Amino acid sequence: MGAPCLGARVGVAPGAGPRRPPFDPETMARLVMKFGGTSVANLERIRNVAQHVKREVAAGYQVAVVVSAMSGKTNELVEWVNDASKIYDPREYDAVVASGEQVTSGLLALALSEIGIPARSWQGWQIPVETDDAHGSARIEKIDGARLAASFARGEVAVIAGFQGIHSASGRITTLGRGGSDTSAVAVAAAIGAERCDIYTDVDGVYTTDPRIVPRARRMDRIAFEEMLEMASLGAKVLQVRSVEVAMVHKVKTFVRSSFDDPNAPQPGTLICDEEDILEQQVVTGIAFSRDEAQITLRRVADRPGVAANIFGPLAEANINVDMIIQVVSDDAKTTDLTFTVGNADYVRAKTILEKNQTDIGFLSLHGATDVVKVSAIGVGMRSHAGVAALAFRALADKGINIRAITTSEIKFSVLIDAEYTELAVRTLHTLYGLDKA
Amino acid sequence: MGAPCLGARVGVAPGAGPRRPPFDPETMARLVMKFGGTSVANLERIRNVAQHVKREVAAGYQVAVVVSAMSGKTNELVEWVNDASKIYDPREYDAVVASGEQVTSGLLALALSEIGIPARSWQGWQIPVETDDAHGSARIEKIDGARLAASFARGEVAVIAGFQGIHSASGRITTLGRGGSDTSAVAVAAAIGAERCDIYTDVDGVYTTDPRIVPRARRMDRIAFEEMLEMASLGAKVLQVRSVEVAMVHKVKTFVRSSFDDPNAPQPGTLICDEEDILEQQVVTGIAFSRDEAQITLRRVADRPGVAANIFGPLAEANINVDMIIQVVSDDAKTTDLTFTVGNADYVRAKTILEKNQTDIGFLSLHGATDVVKVSAIGVGMRSHAGVAALAFRALADKGINIRAITTSEIKFSVLIDAEYTELAVRTLHTLYGLDKA
Repeated sequence: MGAPCLGARVGVAPGAGPRRPPFDPETMARLVMKFGGTSVANLERIRNVAQHVKREVAAGYQVAVVVSAMSGKTNELVEWVNDASKIYDPREYDAVVASGEQVTSGLLALALSEIGIPARSWQGWQIPVETDDAHGSARIEKIDGARLAASFARGEVAVIAGFQGIHSASGRITTLGRGGSDTSAVAVAAAIGAERCDIYTDVDGVYTTDPRIVPRARRMDRIAFEEMLEMASLGAKVLQVRSVEVAMVHKVKTFVRSSFDDPNAPQPGTLICDEEDILEQQVVTGIAFSRDEAQITLRRVADRPGVAANIFGPLAEANINVDMIIQVVSDDAKTTDLTFTVGNADYVRAKTILEKNQTDIGFLSLHGATDVVKVSAIGVGMRSHAGVAALAFRALADKGINIRAITTSEIKFSVLIDAEYTELAVRTLHTLYGLDKA
Repeated sequence: MGAPCLGARVGVAPGAGPRRPPFDPETMARLVMKFGGTSVANLERIRNVAQHVKREVAAGYQVAVVVSAMSGKTNELVEWVNDASKIYDPREYDAVVASGEQVTSGLLALALSEIGIPARSWQGWQIPVETDDAHGSARIEKIDGARLAASFARGEVAVIAGFQGIHSASGRITTLGRGGSDTSAVAVAAAIGAERCDIYTDVDGVYTTDPRIVPRARRMDRIAFEEMLEMASLGAKVLQVRSVEVAMVHKVKTFVRSSFDDPNAPQPGTLICDEEDILEQQVVTGIAFSRDEAQITLRRVADRPGVAANIFGPLAEANINVDMIIQVVSDDAKTTDLTFTVGNADYVRAKTILEKNQTDIGFLSLHGATDVVKVSAIGVGMRSHAGVAALAFRALADKGINIRAITTSEIKFSVLIDAEYTELAVRTLHTLYGLDKA
């Protein structure tokens, strides 16, 4: 087992022993703090963020702050883009939408200067944060930390507009997709060798499941990167999936914390870290669920080579992601029935494409449902424990919940069920795996 | 007399003989079109702008469009900046405020694509528009037209965020000050060798005076650069002063036109051009007025060398612009009385500074007034006509209007009068110099 990653000092908690000024720029540790839209929703909230930053500066860190757009701003800008053109041009979408973070970065730099903390704003293209040219959902390729380092050496807090970068070859602004500021923050942390990356949000950490559904859900002190990745992929909205991937690859110690805490009495939040750094490993760590699911079943599909390609090829071309796929022999024992899920937004398009290709594919009938939900249990402990999923199938059956489809992987399993059973199923699994708070 | 500058084709006016497609990119004429805040106030107005652009593209121009922020947006951003910090940091002000034009540029590019006109947005730093580092009121130093030319060659309309540039050494966003998009437009026109620069606004040209005060004011077909410069400096709000300077130096034929015209039946507006290109020259071309004036009079100033420096030095240091200065011998015949004007916003500061320095300067008393207005008559014809101003003094006296101060220069004179006589004075001079419409 590696050294526990609690070495990171979290703010000026009593006894944490912050260094005392004057600090030596050469040896100062670096910290990335990321604040989402609700944390910078207005000037009052932005001033509150400045207080959080002030605390960490006083603790002896060189701080980079990554900010989202003020809450609601991105939606307003996206509406304008949609109003301006039915032809979606993602390059112009990016130019318009990236302006939201630009505004916040300048305002926070001002709010910091106002309380005596030297600060300057950084747009993606100024650092630069280089990305590929997949406008609207670009991937970060490289962050040059040199200019930020020079800024730290001048004693400045770097306030970075999240969510955005630049595609160097074209010189155009790119954005990273919804939640992209999380990824900006983690990637900046990796680039500047930050001691840790604190993601401030409107909840105080990662929970075993959504506390609005399960009041007995518990905040976790720690969660492994792999688990967090599955939680985020399977419906937990606390972090962008990509940000967890980046954190995992670059071993960035990432905390999820609340910006609504008193800046002078910060709570630790949840640390996302290596599996080995978690002392008491549970078999199941959390329960996630996603309502963004639609089920499609093709009955009596001709059972011949290439049929899967005929079905999923056209969907892939139309950029429709297919998730759970289950194939069973039909009741006529000669053909197969095929069930899979797609995102709700793609449901109608997927149906239309399949119906248009019915002759090519060769199926008898198509059945669909959108009132379904995917409930998942996640835990790295599943690797070493057999029969974890089987327990769930039994418990759900006992509650009269019918399972429409199942998928499993090394550290999670998911069941597709009728949406009306969502809360019951989540609570049942949460209790089953011993996650309820005492 | 030079060739009249009417050679410029204005849209597709009947008989103007637009070239016919296909156009040769090598020989196509270029055009800059600038649209202010009210012309891009919402998506409907932006679509209307796209129609104006479409007309000029159809006429065979390579078009660069320069846009302001949607009307009201800049004010909102400025308010946030002021709310964020009492310490004014013009670098962050620029980062925040420049986002307004960024949004409009993307939206117009989208609206153009929507109607089949290939277009892309350009931020100041992307072109780049290089400026000095006087954040908040930067001056353009250089515009590289190469990237825009490449964009034209690809058949794109270039939609340029006005008002902004980049200070290359620091890599930071700069803005050009209120009305700066006019200057952006004229400077881009010079950089790309545009045939002309059309400034679209909410009025249909430059008037002999404000039509809201003088209903008989006339739209001018032409006005000389020098006259427009004085008109803008002396209170006419139709163009930023700096833009006229740039147009004059680079001989950019500039039209002031209305974006509220039917895009398919555009009106010519007012052409700003060389003095020699105006056939019928009038002695007085226009009457301007400015309410942004405050008068300060120092009584019995010690009449000794260096006293002017003692008075105006501290004001200059405080960045207070002093305008009209009149010095007369006091009634005691040993000292002088000194009257001058400052902007309304600087009045209180100026008074405080002078009172603090009363002993150094040596004056008996300070009198001030803010309910004053400066009315000016402008015309290049004054150069060759004597006694033009004297006529005005007589006419104003006949109406019982007391003149507090007078300044004259080669092509204009100004009088400072009580504010309550503003309309009467403007109408009197407008009629006196034969400017009333028939």
